Amino acid sequence: MTEKQADSVGVVETKTIRVVHADDTFKLTSGKPLSPIDVAYEIYGKLNSAGDNVMLICHALSGSAHAAGFSGPDDKKPGWWDIMVGPGKAIDTDKYYVICSNFLGGCSGTTGPSSINPRTEKPYNLEFPMITIADMVKVQKLLLDKLGIKQLLSVVGGSMGGMQVLQWAVDYPDFVKSAIVIASTSRLGPQAIAFDAVGRNAILADPKKGLATARMVGHITYLSKESMRGKFGRVLKSADKYSYDFSSEFSVETYLDYQGQSFIERFDANSYLYITKAMDYFDLERDYDSLQQAFAKTKSRFLIVSFTSDWLFTPAQSEEMVNALVAQRKPVSYCNIFSPYGHDAFLLEPQALGSLLGGFLSTTIAKPKFSRNSKVSSIKGVDRAKRLRVDYELIESLIEPDSRVLDIGCGDGQLLLNLQYDKNIDAEGIEVDQELVLQGVNNGLNIIHRDIERGLELYPDSSFDYAILSQTLQTLKNPHHVFAELLRVSRKVIVSFPNFAYWRCRAGLFFGGRAPRTKKLPFKWYDTPNIHFMSLKDFDDFCEEIGAKIEAKIPLISNRRSPVKFAPNIFAEQAVYLTSRKNG
Amino acid sequence: MTEKQADSVGVVETKTIRVVHADDTFKLTSGKPLSPIDVAYEIYGKLNSAGDNVMLICHALSGSAHAAGFSGPDDKKPGWWDIMVGPGKAIDTDKYYVICSNFLGGCSGTTGPSSINPRTEKPYNLEFPMITIADMVKVQKLLLDKLGIKQLLSVVGGSMGGMQVLQWAVDYPDFVKSAIVIASTSRLGPQAIAFDAVGRNAILADPKKGLATARMVGHITYLSKESMRGKFGRVLKSADKYSYDFSSEFSVETYLDYQGQSFIERFDANSYLYITKAMDYFDLERDYDSLQQAFAKTKSRFLIVSFTSDWLFTPAQSEEMVNALVAQRKPVSYCNIFSPYGHDAFLLEPQALGSLLGGFLSTTIAKPKFSRNSKVSSIKGVDRAKRLRVDYELIESLIEPDSRVLDIGCGDGQLLLNLQYDKNIDAEGIEVDQELVLQGVNNGLNIIHRDIERGLELYPDSSFDYAILSQTLQTLKNPHHVFAELLRVSRKVIVSFPNFAYWRCRAGLFFGGRAPRTKKLPFKWYDTPNIHFMSLKDFDDFCEEIGAKIEAKIPLISNRRSPVKFAPNIFAEQAVYLTSRKNG
Repeated sequence: MTEKQADSVGVVETKTIRVVHADDTFKLTSGKPLSPIDVAYEIYGKLNSAGDNVMLICHALSGSAHAAGFSGPDDKKPGWWDIMVGPGKAIDTDKYYVICSNFLGGCSGTTGPSSINPRTEKPYNLEFPMITIADMVKVQKLLLDKLGIKQLLSVVGGSMGGMQVLQWAVDYPDFVKSAIVIASTSRLGPQAIAFDAVGRNAILADPKKGLATARMVGHITYLSKESMRGKFGRVLKSADKYSYDFSSEFSVETYLDYQGQSFIERFDANSYLYITKAMDYFDLERDYDSLQQAFAKTKSRFLIVSFTSDWLFTPAQSEEMVNALVAQRKPVSYCNIFSPYGHDAFLLEPQALGSLLGGFLSTTIAKPKFSRNSKVSSIKGVDRAKRLRVDYELIESLIEPDSRVLDIGCGDGQLLLNLQYDKNIDAEGIEVDQELVLQGVNNGLNIIHRDIERGLELYPDSSFDYAILSQTLQTLKNPHHVFAELLRVSRKVIVSFPNFAYWRCRAGLFFGGRAPRTKKLPFKWYDTPNIHFMSLKDFDDFCEEIGAKIEAKIPLISNRRSPVKFAPNIFAEQAVYLTSRKNG
Repeated sequence: MTEKQADSVGVVETKTIRVVHADDTFKLTSGKPLSPIDVAYEIYGKLNSAGDNVMLICHALSGSAHAAGFSGPDDKKPGWWDIMVGPGKAIDTDKYYVICSNFLGGCSGTTGPSSINPRTEKPYNLEFPMITIADMVKVQKLLLDKLGIKQLLSVVGGSMGGMQVLQWAVDYPDFVKSAIVIASTSRLGPQAIAFDAVGRNAILADPKKGLATARMVGHITYLSKESMRGKFGRVLKSADKYSYDFSSEFSVETYLDYQGQSFIERFDANSYLYITKAMDYFDLERDYDSLQQAFAKTKSRFLIVSFTSDWLFTPAQSEEMVNALVAQRKPVSYCNIFSPYGHDAFLLEPQALGSLLGGFLSTTIAKPKFSRNSKVSSIKGVDRAKRLRVDYELIESLIEPDSRVLDIGCGDGQLLLNLQYDKNIDAEGIEVDQELVLQGVNNGLNIIHRDIERGLELYPDSSFDYAILSQTLQTLKNPHHVFAELLRVSRKVIVSFPNFAYWRCRAGLFFGGRAPRTKKLPFKWYDTPNIHFMSLKDFDDFCEEIGAKIEAKIPLISNRRSPVKFAPNIFAEQAVYLTSRKNG
């Protein structure tokens, strides 16, 4: 760092504190004791007077306490998450008091296999006791106690850091106001365990060479096929011709060689053994019989983030956690960020990830100010015509105060915000568009990033008082399935759609012999998002068939607020229905 | 083998033959010489009198010449592809004369790094010259010459075996009548090279332990995430509790340990080095500037097969080959077989793969007998209503003899078969349903397994005289794009669709106020495959807009062959159009 950058925390010092003294008792999950324990940590930002702006960052496998800034005036390489942590950044050190510590078992200042075993006065190496993610978190809690921290606004981490976040939320429910779990999982699948096992086998055969091999395997799993193709392709290191020997000649080989070699210089092979084993052991489902049970007593607000091309800890694994949280009715937002960078994306996507974290954190520390102005029309990249919503006021009029409401295709959440303000509802939203999810989260709402066509199996029966499906039914591949699911998860369902039997449509087809186009149906037959066409009568029949009771039916003409009274199937351009389960 | 099984080739002998003598000159791709060269091979079945029933099987990385049968009366484990090779099996040894040889550089009888270097009278080890896939094929050709084989009915191989097949087709176009490439690629991507490099690094550090590590990595890449989850999950080897030590406790770990250890016992570490390097070097695109150029002089009929869950050599890599072959107007069929087994599926999917290979081989050796009876209606699992075709005779009447015809959604290919028989057309088909692709291939047709929604970028402009799109346009998400593509790749396009302005539809909506249902449109609004609705007038407008000239327009009522003459947009239930490019 040659001169101070405005968005950098500048030169920082890694401090070390003894959290367990030599004669203290600290029992590990395995049952074995460990003492003493020192913890290396860094702090950025200032504690506010209320003491409610504290954040804890948990690092991943090869990370350290040095998350941001520079270690000295001549240091050129900033901390491992500097793109996210600093003044004005997503984890804003002007607002938050940010702590990051090297975890137990690490090799960057905190007690681990390379520390001196007081019994032998030599490094522990393989004499170090086995540790778990829960042990790491317990040690982090001791650190925070020493620092006098009473509550965490948020605990955040990517990959293995996310596992620590989950453990925090589960083990210290009253201590953690919000939990941000990025590119992580509640337990490794057999493929990830297998990759870890390969690395350990190699290290146990030869610590130095094995650690390089393990790191090479690791790096392959951190990148996506796509990003490797973009970054390396089949390019050769230097020559244009094959060398016909066993030197590393493809540039992907030299990259891996470099990663392996440089890792040997900075990392302890034994730490790698213990850390990967802690990852393999991590399994919230096993510890609590089910993931739902694991989350049952949490009190945090959750943000779960995955990346589309991450094949190490997949979006499906993030969704498992989201589903369990939703089933336990815990407040959770989820976004599956589009990225080509694979697992490494949590270190490489400051835009989308930053917006998400920034919005989630700022609306966790303080509720955003309410604004009734819809932003939907100004949203870039989202076709307004496809998102045409019926009059919010009409839908609002159908909803009773203090209800639990799910809005399907909630956009940036304006309707839910209105309802929160006017009717004090408990709001949840589902949205398929990533940009709108980001905006919804920035508006302080709990939004699940999901394609409604996939169904609603994450919600238990009768989770909501109202589900709203506005101007969407006709665009679904399987409206029957989706509507049946809505009736299952919600006591009442509000649905609106264009009336395909509106007189202009009828006349257009009858007299004109063409697929109709009107103001509400402005699309040509071949590029319409509307792939099903139904009239009010069709929908009446549909409700009968599916076992839905029509509680209210409000035919509308677009520019008028009052319902159509005469021959609505002919004169209504669209309709809003309030329905409920017949047997409910 | 305790007693002879009816579908087994029984006890077989691996023979060895010297194809390059000590004082012969055999120059490798690298420029270096190698001699002598011995080849180990097995033969199953009988050579017919015409000598036109010879098949060559090329094995993958860890295979050998022992593809089928048993090595002795007490042998319990059959050859590596016994599920596919034997009397009555897909590669039917009652019909075909089947040869399989261990490739150059191997360690199962053919000259390789573990052979004695005549210069030093010790094993070559790392003194063995670098070899390529082309070198392996050259040696296989020498073997066939020694055996007096004049032509191959087919050369077949999976994974690295598929690379040898490709090289055969490219290097010996007149020798190879057909080529079957399974779960393979024309060149490795950087991820696969990286996995190979990890294995080689480990071996170069420690041959024994490294070979085990390499094999473990290999096995992870051969399985899919899904199959690993099914096979191992997070199950522990024995105890119910974590052992908190570094023994292999997850069953996936013990599986990999076993695979690694047993591989050490039967395989040569140096062979592994040379073979993986040969794979990494294999790159038809590099050798011929483009994949299309590589295929330019081939004369084989091709069958390319991939598996949906194969992430080592992906379906997309198979499609690259298919696209290059199609662009070069080579006869090719392609099927992406649905399988959860990952790359290993080529050893584990005898049903689908067997049907495909059996049909391809039997229709390559002899044209199937023509039958006019459509089998479409008897096809299991395919909804007949969704596949309702307009009268074949009408479409036939629009097509001139000796044309090149592409049928989109060709089903089992009955229309193409009729056209072949009646009009001597050059037929190609695209079909999305795997079962129908298998049937089409069994009918002797060249069928590409593909979703038409993905477009037709594989075909150059004006590849066909006619493209047929029957009763499909209205089910497409993007009919505009697909139709434009058809007009690009074919001089003329025949398209048929239901007329949504048929009077019963009009009346249904106008008077009934419901989404119309007729005999041709029998679906309810919410479960119809028809997601776009257009009338004849709409289609006329569409042709105008897209630059298509309407050469013929035949409105039809379903039970009558003669066109509707009066007010067709009202009285026709469906229509057949013959269109062409306006600027063409």
